[in-house]
Amino acid sequence: MTTTLEEIASLVGGDLDGDGTRVVSGVAAIDEAGPGEVTFLHHPKYLPLFDSCRAGAVIVSTEIRHEVDGRERPFALIVAQNPYLAMARVARHFEPARAKRRGVAPSADVAPDAVIGADVEVQAGAHVAGGVRIGDRSVISAGAFLGENVQIGADAVLHPNVVVRDGCRIGDRVILHPGVVVGADGFGFAWDGACHLKIPQAGIVAIEDDVEVGANATIDRATFGETRIGRGTKIDNLVHIGHNVVVGENVLIVAQTGVAGSCRIEDGAAIGGQVGMIPHVTVGKGAKIVPQSGIAKDVPAGEVVAGSPAMPHRVWLRVAAILPKLPDLYAALRKGGPA
Amino acid sequence: MTTTLEEIASLVGGDLDGDGTRVVSGVAAIDEAGPGEVTFLHHPKYLPLFDSCRAGAVIVSTEIRHEVDGRERPFALIVAQNPYLAMARVARHFEPARAKRRGVAPSADVAPDAVIGADVEVQAGAHVAGGVRIGDRSVISAGAFLGENVQIGADAVLHPNVVVRDGCRIGDRVILHPGVVVGADGFGFAWDGACHLKIPQAGIVAIEDDVEVGANATIDRATFGETRIGRGTKIDNLVHIGHNVVVGENVLIVAQTGVAGSCRIEDGAAIGGQVGMIPHVTVGKGAKIVPQSGIAKDVPAGEVVAGSPAMPHRVWLRVAAILPKLPDLYAALRKGGPA
Amino acid sequence: MTTTLEEIASLVGGDLDGDGTRVVSGVAAIDEAGPGEVTFLHHPKYLPLFDSCRAGAVIVSTEIRHEVDGRERPFALIVAQNPYLAMARVARHFEPARAKRRGVAPSADVAPDAVIGADVEVQAGAHVAGGVRIGDRSVISAGAFLGENVQIGADAVLHPNVVVRDGCRIGDRVILHPGVVVGADGFGFAWDGACHLKIPQAGIVAIEDDVEVGANATIDRATFGETRIGRGTKIDNLVHIGHNVVVGENVLIVAQTGVAGSCRIEDGAAIGGQVGMIPHVTVGKGAKIVPQSGIAKDVPAGEVVAGSPAMPHRVWLRVAAILPKLPDLYAALRKGGPA
Repeated sequence: MTTTLEEIASLVGGDLDGDGTRVVSGVAAIDEAGPGEVTFLHHPKYLPLFDSCRAGAVIVSTEIRHEVDGRERPFALIVAQNPYLAMARVARHFEPARAKRRGVAPSADVAPDAVIGADVEVQAGAHVAGGVRIGDRSVISAGAFLGENVQIGADAVLHPNVVVRDGCRIGDRVILHPGVVVGADGFGFAWDGACHLKIPQAGIVAIEDDVEVGANATIDRATFGETRIGRGTKIDNLVHIGHNVVVGENVLIVAQTGVAGSCRIEDGAAIGGQVGMIPHVTVGKGAKIVPQSGIAKDVPAGEVVAGSPAMPHRVWLRVAAILPKLPDLYAALRKGGPA
Repeated sequence: MTTTLEEIASLVGGDLDGDGTRVVSGVAAIDEAGPGEVTFLHHPKYLPLFDSCRAGAVIVSTEIRHEVDGRERPFALIVAQNPYLAMARVARHFEPARAKRRGVAPSADVAPDAVIGADVEVQAGAHVAGGVRIGDRSVISAGAFLGENVQIGADAVLHPNVVVRDGCRIGDRVILHPGVVVGADGFGFAWDGACHLKIPQAGIVAIEDDVEVGANATIDRATFGETRIGRGTKIDNLVHIGHNVVVGENVLIVAQTGVAGSCRIEDGAAIGGQVGMIPHVTVGKGAKIVPQSGIAKDVPAGEVVAGSPAMPHRVWLRVAAILPKLPDLYAALRKGGPA
Repeated sequence: MTTTLEEIASLVGGDLDGDGTRVVSGVAAIDEAGPGEVTFLHHPKYLPLFDSCRAGAVIVSTEIRHEVDGRERPFALIVAQNPYLAMARVARHFEPARAKRRGVAPSADVAPDAVIGADVEVQAGAHVAGGVRIGDRSVISAGAFLGENVQIGADAVLHPNVVVRDGCRIGDRVILHPGVVVGADGFGFAWDGACHLKIPQAGIVAIEDDVEVGANATIDRATFGETRIGRGTKIDNLVHIGHNVVVGENVLIVAQTGVAGSCRIEDGAAIGGQVGMIPHVTVGKGAKIVPQSGIAKDVPAGEVVAGSPAMPHRVWLRVAAILPKLPDLYAALRKGGPA
């Protein structure tokens, strides 16, 4: 597909500084883009790459544009309010068309009573148990396993070796990356004086539309009722979501974070990587959690917290700056004088 | 299955306050239970749900019972010493009967010399190598892989895509959730001046009876000898157990914890989530490790520790309370006055 | 295979104190080795096991040798500069010969245009898509998945249920342990005011020769260009490597560490377990990161850092020693006197 720079600028709502009739056919990183490609420069850290860039056009912010004002360049500039978002739009514009679905492979293990939508692909070595329903145009890749009565929406993509255990429900356009496990038993045991008695995990996992879950992440089924991941939420690799957790809409959860049982994460929250949450706490709407934080009590809506145990981020920044000074502080105090 | 409340009270050793002839047929969460179901209220946080509860019976502690004394309610109370354990017993009572085993699927890849017990299920797409022995009534799910000479006990359940590499031994009634990897090589290398020389990992993993391992957890084989997980121990999702680790009986290890090589965790210890342990340390009998702790030296039996590096929990609670005050403390000290 | 102790001493460049004609045939741990086996004692912690050791020979350092001087023993000593490396060499010497490759299983799902080298093994239930190339003597285990146009070098071993998505390249002698996911989409989204817009992840992962990746680790494909793991680097279980990360040669990354997008880790660095790195930071050549550290800015070459946020390790050791004293310090300050 080829597109003029004028069309690109219009697509991203940006101002074009250069030849609008020039034609481009793809996107690339700033140090790799050629004359037929668009790139972007969204972070001052990458300014040194500007002068050697050979792209057809570079998407920049107003600030970056000022920085490079007057510099010689063989490419057009497209000035956008949010260059990162603009680049996303251009990359999606040039994205290859969806591969044609290949139907149900003869060697796929599909129960006779599974209900398979139109134009679905079930690859060789996939397993589809009884009572499963798969919506139109979805892909169940090799080695993926759908337990009894699982429901998969339309246009969903389950990558190789994904496991969705019995009774769980997956919405439309959901992407589950390789190795994701949905619906394993929650970690529930009661000590009876001699052993840890397993508490049956009788609930399910419900994943709403437009959710994406990263490779080898795990989302446990509820003890009763359901563990729920809200519409548009994006979960990164190796994240753990415990039983009965409720995650709202458009939440981001970065890699290796662990959310213990019965937590609630409200709409639009953003949880950094390697964060830990103890059971039964709530992260309010739009709250932000800095990576590696430990959440042991509720986080109010809109708050930004950091540290383990977590505190307001502005406080944590000051604490973190003082920590390396503790030895000198301590030594001064031992002498009785001011630090 | 239906059961009277009198039978339920007797099952859990609780006191019934209500109509003992009432019949119930299942368990559910307090906000979802209907008149034919039992639920429980074990945490004061959920007291607001008491008045709208529509269950047939609610299991409570003596303390909660006092809290709700005199309130109008359409349901019976069952007062139990440990409502959580009581609920576990009731949930197990109503658990559906075990699914009938379906034998060895024709398309399972089973070596001719594997020894398969009575009433075993090996699903399509499972791989069973030479010399494997599988005990009676065990299930090897789709996509699971048993390497050469693996031994699986009776009544074990290996969920889809579990991998048990060659020579490892799994006990009776063990549950391995989807994606668990048992017996991958330990992380052992020696720098020879030019490269990290791989140290052959010639040992195995031995998992004793009644162990449960969560989704995508990994337990590495020993360099020599064996990595051992003791009877009744429960391991959560995405936990890492390094080579030559020895875990005792009835230990709990919560999600995303990492136990480095040659560590020893003694009977009845409880390790929180996202804990890290460096190689060669011992956690004593019954010790408790708070989530996100870093264990860099031995933890004595019965201790409760927290923080990274870990310290006694009672000390850590005070440290954690002071951390957010450090900036003010520091500012006061710079002025020379008391904080 | 049997070997004399004289040959063993020569193999490891060590000094033999004992009967050089004695014959041994394997290696074992110090508390398990019998008269026909070699073992090693590299840590003073294990000195108590010396007197009861029944091995044929024990590899020790000069220091340990002094410790045990004059003690009665039924075995030879081999004194080596680096007993750990010496033991690695001996263990490799006795390693069983490589299993014979078994060819392409009839039930493997191999695209007609895949190019399979000489003496390759593709097990039942493996999936090899169109355009794939596999080098000589490599093994693709059961349940492994190679997407379109994947390239695998010679003598590589992909364990069961490994996933390598389309376009990724794996070098010679690479080992991918069970459940490893190479080439899943990076975590890239741009907020458009209503939803998190997915940024197409059009790049690949390139893994160079002699790399080893631990069970269930995940390495994401680049947005553009490639995520790269350098020659000889060893990555442990459950590690997360984000999109566009560049890891140099002979790097060690211990279990459960998370490396966010666009980070750079230079040659010979060693990253402990459960470390977290935010996007776009660089760890310099030969730097060392202590376990559980949080890396939020560049680490210079050769530095050793610890803590979250990280600081020089020598500072962190002093900070960590003071943390448990904070409560007393604070109390003293509240009284106005010296601590």
